[in-house]
Amino acid sequence: MPKRLAFFGPPGTHTEQASVNYDAAADLLPYSTIPLVAAAVDSGEADEGVVPIENSVGGSLSVTLDLLIHGSSLFIRQEIILPIKHFLVGRPGTRLEDIDVIYSHHQALEQCRSYMAEHFDGVREALSTSTAAAVEDMLRGDGRAAAIATERAAKLYDAEVLASGIADYANNTTRFVVLASADHPPTGDDKTSICFTFDGDNPGVLHSALGELASRNINLTKIESRPTRAALGEYIFLVDLQGHREDEAVKSALSGLREISTLFKVFGSYPRSS
Amino acid sequence: MPKRLAFFGPPGTHTEQASVNYDAAADLLPYSTIPLVAAAVDSGEADEGVVPIENSVGGSLSVTLDLLIHGSSLFIRQEIILPIKHFLVGRPGTRLEDIDVIYSHHQALEQCRSYMAEHFDGVREALSTSTAAAVEDMLRGDGRAAAIATERAAKLYDAEVLASGIADYANNTTRFVVLASADHPPTGDDKTSICFTFDGDNPGVLHSALGELASRNINLTKIESRPTRAALGEYIFLVDLQGHREDEAVKSALSGLREISTLFKVFGSYPRSS
Repeated sequence: MPKRLAFFGPPGTHTEQASVNYDAAADLLPYSTIPLVAAAVDSGEADEGVVPIENSVGGSLSVTLDLLIHGSSLFIRQEIILPIKHFLVGRPGTRLEDIDVIYSHHQALEQCRSYMAEHFDGVREALSTSTAAAVEDMLRGDGRAAAIATERAAKLYDAEVLASGIADYANNTTRFVVLASADHPPTGDDKTSICFTFDGDNPGVLHSALGELASRNINLTKIESRPTRAALGEYIFLVDLQGHREDEAVKSALSGLREISTLFKVFGSYPRSS
Repeated sequence: MPKRLAFFGPPGTHTEQASVNYDAAADLLPYSTIPLVAAAVDSGEADEGVVPIENSVGGSLSVTLDLLIHGSSLFIRQEIILPIKHFLVGRPGTRLEDIDVIYSHHQALEQCRSYMAEHFDGVREALSTSTAAAVEDMLRGDGRAAAIATERAAKLYDAEVLASGIADYANNTTRFVVLASADHPPTGDDKTSICFTFDGDNPGVLHSALGELASRNINLTKIESRPTRAALGEYIFLVDLQGHREDEAVKSALSGLREISTLFKVFGSYPRSS
């Protein structure tokens, strides 16, 4: 039986492409928000779910980070890295000078900031749940709308590519994660994602925490902070590190970290994508 | 002559309230985006500018962080902390069940996520440049639109408050910063904001960097990372620490940090707001 793979849809999103790259044989099930993808895996409607977590220009997707911290007990089983290309898409025949609103996902709008300022200064931006939903939203409009989306979304929805290569940075890459009820067994070249927080704000506590990694020569590939939501100035730290949670050095570092943390969560270990 | 104070407007934004709290006698000049506020100070149109930088629920405003890193040589001269209340605002007489689109700033939408899911599941969200601009966008609509905005914006634009207290977390607070051509002289109770990055990814380098602070007993009040935009997995770290850059301990820590960094920038020192 093919794997039932939930993804952040509808069809035509970058996440759909990442999902196909991950498992071309899977049954792809689109969900319109990132929390709904996690809920589908939680409920057993899907075996695994694919969501974006980080872009090389826009940074982390806070909705995915907050879901991992507060909203889900799923694990990260895999990471998928995909180069991103953005296209301006409209109804066939739309003229650029007529466009008065541009729909997209907020991260896509952010990644095309300079293009938008140069060509569509003052044109209204409308938030869609995803880049493919932006094409649907655009088609519901009065013909003066456009969307920032994938080339595949333009094809799927019988829309026209009005402009190509509109992202501000050539090196635009998104990292996706596969959420599942268990993480991945060790492969010898793995990463582990965790989060933790401390009580109070004594000067050295984050330094000590990172010392648990540095003293064991464990490479930290990412550190990010998110608000605890309790009070301004209180943070939860999210760290990606090299190695699997079953590796001796990582196991011992994580146990050291757990001891000094008030909240500590392992999101999972998974093969490192190059 | 009163100070000319640029702020992230139009009138009726939370930033306007923060600006009044900061200097009630100032001439307030609204700008529709955060980069335009900085540009107004840069060009001399305004003496100082007020922009939001961080919310206790939504986290940092990446546009402000990226502006400080990449887009401006202005300094942070002051921080302002403001409790945030969100209101659902519509044309007078709007019925909740008729609403088919809700405008707001993306951070405000994020801070009302649960309220929106409970009361407006499936209703389209439209991105406005600010909460006050959302009220203007809503008024341009067909009477089935609403906006998430301040109570003051509802009054200013002759709109009606349809629902109050719609933010998901009671403890919703935003931190604003005042941008100016110079930072603030020492007061004895200050903070300093910096950013730095390193070449390569040797395991201990961030740990060593934080060691420059910890070994001098300097409290780190915030750490955040943003993409360098050069490649996925390369980050610029933003750190807030207690103390003024002219304090001996801070001065020496910053000089240690500068030595191990490939990019190093002091955003400024300013009085700590309680």
